[in-house]
Amino acid sequence: MGGGAAGRRHGARRGGAMTPRAALRDPKQDRSRATRQRLLEAAVACLAEHGWARSTVAVVAERAGVSRGAAQHHFPTREDLFTAAVQHVAEERSAALRALLSHERGEGREQREPGGPGRVAEVVEALVELYTGPLFRAALQLWVVASYEEQLGARVAALEARIGRETHRMAVEALGADESVPGVRESVQGFLDMARGLGLANLLTDDRARRDRVVAQWARILDDVLRAPS
Amino acid sequence: MGGGAAGRRHGARRGGAMTPRAALRDPKQDRSRATRQRLLEAAVACLAEHGWARSTVAVVAERAGVSRGAAQHHFPTREDLFTAAVQHVAEERSAALRALLSHERGEGREQREPGGPGRVAEVVEALVELYTGPLFRAALQLWVVASYEEQLGARVAALEARIGRETHRMAVEALGADESVPGVRESVQGFLDMARGLGLANLLTDDRARRDRVVAQWARILDDVLRAPS
Repeated sequence: MGGGAAGRRHGARRGGAMTPRAALRDPKQDRSRATRQRLLEAAVACLAEHGWARSTVAVVAERAGVSRGAAQHHFPTREDLFTAAVQHVAEERSAALRALLSHERGEGREQREPGGPGRVAEVVEALVELYTGPLFRAALQLWVVASYEEQLGARVAALEARIGRETHRMAVEALGADESVPGVRESVQGFLDMARGLGLANLLTDDRARRDRVVAQWARILDDVLRAPS
Repeated sequence: MGGGAAGRRHGARRGGAMTPRAALRDPKQDRSRATRQRLLEAAVACLAEHGWARSTVAVVAERAGVSRGAAQHHFPTREDLFTAAVQHVAEERSAALRALLSHERGEGREQREPGGPGRVAEVVEALVELYTGPLFRAALQLWVVASYEEQLGARVAALEARIGRETHRMAVEALGADESVPGVRESVQGFLDMARGLGLANLLTDDRARRDRVVAQWARILDDVLRAPS
């Protein structure tokens, strides 16, 4: 569930050459959009791998194969570039979650009703996966920088609140959780906090073996909590 | 459960003027130790508030009220200072956890057996609290920088692994969890991952109201899991 794959799906959906809308497009505008998209993806990758201090507009431009002038045309300041990249990360995460939901409901899985056997474990594993890839690493760098960089702080906080709400809504839907039952809302939230913490634990070392055991256990616990008559 | 308070307790325990060992001490060495301690505490506070990029040796020295020369005598490089500060953060966290455990077992609470009513909720709240203060904010900055700074990476990863093991051991003890029961070990680990994720969610906004509801619900869940005959 890497940023690149999600970005390609996203781009393909919006800019497919066979759609009537695309046929009316200005090729110059298309090239400009493609350049912008490459810069945003490079900014996210750069941030995930090298952190804020080493992610300058010049470094991102070089990585994207774009001239520094063209990069500055699209994003006059470093803050502009990385704020737009936060937005990009947010859209990538939403697209990845939407893809997960449609996949989970796709061919050969219709019998698995929300709450059916194995469904909770599948959804839990897929949601945790979202917090262990490059998208989460980039978002983490931005959260940490936004905690002391005023120019980023308010915008990133607002974005993160929106992403948090959307992730929660998608998790509730995918898990088939009934939030009218007391405690269910907080159970799902706590599980998403756990997924975030597992992402953090994976930052410095490959934590997969431990994570798999924790996720298997907590999928069982969450399954019990969501099925229990309260 | 701030760094300062834990540091003072820690310092008092080791350097109390009335102990026979202190009476044998060289006053010059004591001053040197005090300077070093001030630098470490300033480095942690600086990191928590301003992030890595703005936390230079000069900034930390000024904050500690120490000359730049004295700071460089103790810590020749920036990496030396902040690696030692990581160690300091680790000791602070251990001291805070030990204080929590002895407090929980202190006066008027003897009746609360591990696993007794209310005990799990109390321990869960106190453990989550550890991840929402300045110590966690400083550690988070270090984790994130260590993810791409080679000089810090291996040392911070080793330290974090050690702290993780110690936190887990203390949580098991405080919760009265029986790890010979299948799943109990992973339940406690997942709960600590949740606490870490809650700390992260508190980075950009004051998340206390939501966190309190999540913690109350997950304390109930963990209590059920730990009491259940497996």
